[in-house]
Amino acid sequence: MIKTDALIIGAGPTGLFCAHQLGLIGLNCEIVDNLDKIGGQCIELYPDKPIYDIPAVPECTGEELTNNLIKQIKPFNIKFHLNERVEEVNKVNNKWIVKTNKKKEFVTPNIIIAGGVGSFEPRKFSPKECEKYENRSLFYSIKDKTIFQDKTISIFGGGDSALDWAIELSKSSYVNLIHRRDEFTGAQLSIDKIKELEKSGKLKIYTKYQLNSVKGEQNIKSIEIKHDDESLKELETNYVLGFFGLIMKLGPIVDWGLNLDKKTIPVNTENFETNLNGIFAIGDICTYPGKLKLILSGFHEGALAARGCFKYARPDEKLRFEFTTTSKAAQERLGVKK
Amino acid sequence: MIKTDALIIGAGPTGLFCAHQLGLIGLNCEIVDNLDKIGGQCIELYPDKPIYDIPAVPECTGEELTNNLIKQIKPFNIKFHLNERVEEVNKVNNKWIVKTNKKKEFVTPNIIIAGGVGSFEPRKFSPKECEKYENRSLFYSIKDKTIFQDKTISIFGGGDSALDWAIELSKSSYVNLIHRRDEFTGAQLSIDKIKELEKSGKLKIYTKYQLNSVKGEQNIKSIEIKHDDESLKELETNYVLGFFGLIMKLGPIVDWGLNLDKKTIPVNTENFETNLNGIFAIGDICTYPGKLKLILSGFHEGALAARGCFKYARPDEKLRFEFTTTSKAAQERLGVKK
Repeated sequence: MIKTDALIIGAGPTGLFCAHQLGLIGLNCEIVDNLDKIGGQCIELYPDKPIYDIPAVPECTGEELTNNLIKQIKPFNIKFHLNERVEEVNKVNNKWIVKTNKKKEFVTPNIIIAGGVGSFEPRKFSPKECEKYENRSLFYSIKDKTIFQDKTISIFGGGDSALDWAIELSKSSYVNLIHRRDEFTGAQLSIDKIKELEKSGKLKIYTKYQLNSVKGEQNIKSIEIKHDDESLKELETNYVLGFFGLIMKLGPIVDWGLNLDKKTIPVNTENFETNLNGIFAIGDICTYPGKLKLILSGFHEGALAARGCFKYARPDEKLRFEFTTTSKAAQERLGVKK
Repeated sequence: MIKTDALIIGAGPTGLFCAHQLGLIGLNCEIVDNLDKIGGQCIELYPDKPIYDIPAVPECTGEELTNNLIKQIKPFNIKFHLNERVEEVNKVNNKWIVKTNKKKEFVTPNIIIAGGVGSFEPRKFSPKECEKYENRSLFYSIKDKTIFQDKTISIFGGGDSALDWAIELSKSSYVNLIHRRDEFTGAQLSIDKIKELEKSGKLKIYTKYQLNSVKGEQNIKSIEIKHDDESLKELETNYVLGFFGLIMKLGPIVDWGLNLDKKTIPVNTENFETNLNGIFAIGDICTYPGKLKLILSGFHEGALAARGCFKYARPDEKLRFEFTTTSKAAQERLGVKK
C-alpha cells in the first residue's frame, strides 16, 4: 500500500505541472502513466514539432517542453510509475484505494486525472470471436516475428504498417494482404513492392474485402472475408494481423462512477473537481464551458486542482495563498532559499 | 480615432500574452498602460526577483519573463501606448469608444482589462485641504530637491523613504520629521542617523503625531499636528512631504458601470467577460470562484478572453480551434510557416 497526498494519472505536461503545484503547497504525489515514458501526447505525438503558444516560451518542441517541466519538478523527487495503468478505484473510509494492472495499491485522499485524450489503443476487428484469439493467433502489433515462419498469415490494412509487415513476412511466410479499399495509403515504394511480390507469387492481395468471421478451435484455422459486393471467400490461415491505426480510449475510467460527456469529464472550474469528491480532472480530458484543449489551460487547471486537494489531504490546516517570489515555505520546498 | 479589434488595458504579462492569443486567431489589438514601460508589476515590483512557478520555466526574473513575452508577440507588431491612462469608455453603435488622458480615442468592439491590481498611487494625507496644495507645497514624491533649499520642510512617515529624505534634506533645510508611531520602521542605520541629527539640532522629531490641518494661502504657511493624547501643536513650515507608501487604486474603471467586488471585477469563466458585453477582465484584477492571483492563471484567462473577443470582432465568421503545432493560419501569422 503506497500512501500519498495525491495520485496523478498521466505524466503529460498537465500532470507534471500539477505535481509542481502540489509540491509548492507542501503536498506529495505519485504519478502513474500507461506509456513507457514521461511526456504524454507531447512525446508520443509530436516530440520534434515546434509549439508556439507556451506562455513566455516563444518556441519549443514537445520534447523540450517535457524536459523543462521535468527539471522544474526535480526539487520534489516525484515518484513515477510508468508502463502502468490504473484499473480500479474504490472509496474506503474517506480515502481512495487505487489498484493498477501491476497489482500496485495506492491509498490517497486525492486522485487527479490528467489523462489527456485517453490511452492510445489499436483499432480492432469487428467480429466478436476475434477477441478469444487475441494475442494467440490474432495480433494488432508484432513483438516476436519468428512465430510466423513458414505459416500462412493474413494481414489486414492499407497503410504503411500493413504494407511493411506484408513485405517483411513474405520473406519466410505465405502472406495474404487484405484491404477494404481499392487503393493502398502507404508509401508508393511499398505499394510497388507488394505488387511485384504478388506477381512473383510471394503474396496474394485481396482488395475491397473485410474480415467477416474467424474459424478455429484453440488457434485460428481459417477466415471468411467479404467483398463490397457481399460475396464471401474462405482463406486458410494460421495467423491474422490487423493494422488499422490507433484510437483513443478512456479505458477503465469509464467504470468509476464519474459523470462523462462523450470522452471528457465535466468539472467545476473552481477547483476542477469532478462529481466525485477528491477526484479531479485537468487538461484535455476535462470539460467545462469555454474549455480549450491548450497546454497552458492545463497548467491553470492543475494549479487550482492542487489547492482543491489540500482540504482533503490536510483537513485541519488552512492554506495561505503565497507567491514563489516571496514565500519562504515555497522556496524551502524548491531548495532555493537563501 | 484608432480602430482596433481589441484594446488591452495593461502591459503586464497577462496583457502581453493575451495580445499573442488575439494575434494567433487573426485579431489585432493595441495596448495602453499607465506606466512608462512594458511589464506591469513584474517590472515595477520585482524585476530582479526570481519567479519559480511559470510553467516549463524553472526559474526566471520578472524582467526575463517580460522580455520573453515581448519576444513571443513580436510577429504581431503590437502598438503600445505607454504613460497613458484610459479615462472614459462609452458604447456607441455596438462599439466601445475609449478616451485616454492624452486625448487619444479608440473605437473597438472589445476592451480587455488586464490592469493587475490597479494603478499604484501614493497613500495620501486625510485633511481635505491638503489636495489644494498638492504638487505646489505638498508632495508625495520628490522630483526637484533644489526648491527645498533653506526652507522649513515637514516630513511625515516612519519608513525608509521618510528617513532617507529627512537625512538628505537636513543638509540644507530645516527639517521636522513627524511619525504617528513611537518607533520608526526604516533601516537601523538611518534611525541612528536621524537621532544623531536631532541631537546636533539639524532636525526635530515628533513621534505619535499626525497631520491635523494645514494653513496658508497660495502656499502652506503652517501645519497643526495632533498627538495621540489629542494635544495639538502648530509648526511653521514651507513644505509638507508625505511618505506613507503606495496603495492600489482601480482608477477611472470604477465609473464604467462594471460590477465590482471590492477592488476586483467578477467575470464569467467561460470567456472572462464582465457584466458588460465586449468588456473582459483577466489577470489579478478579475475574480471568480477559485481565483488565484498567479501569472499562469492570467495566461489561461487571456487565451479564453481572446476567443471571447472573436465573436464581436468577426460576427460573421466562425472560429475553428487549432493547434500552433499544426495550424497553417497560425504559423503564417507567427511568420514561421515552412
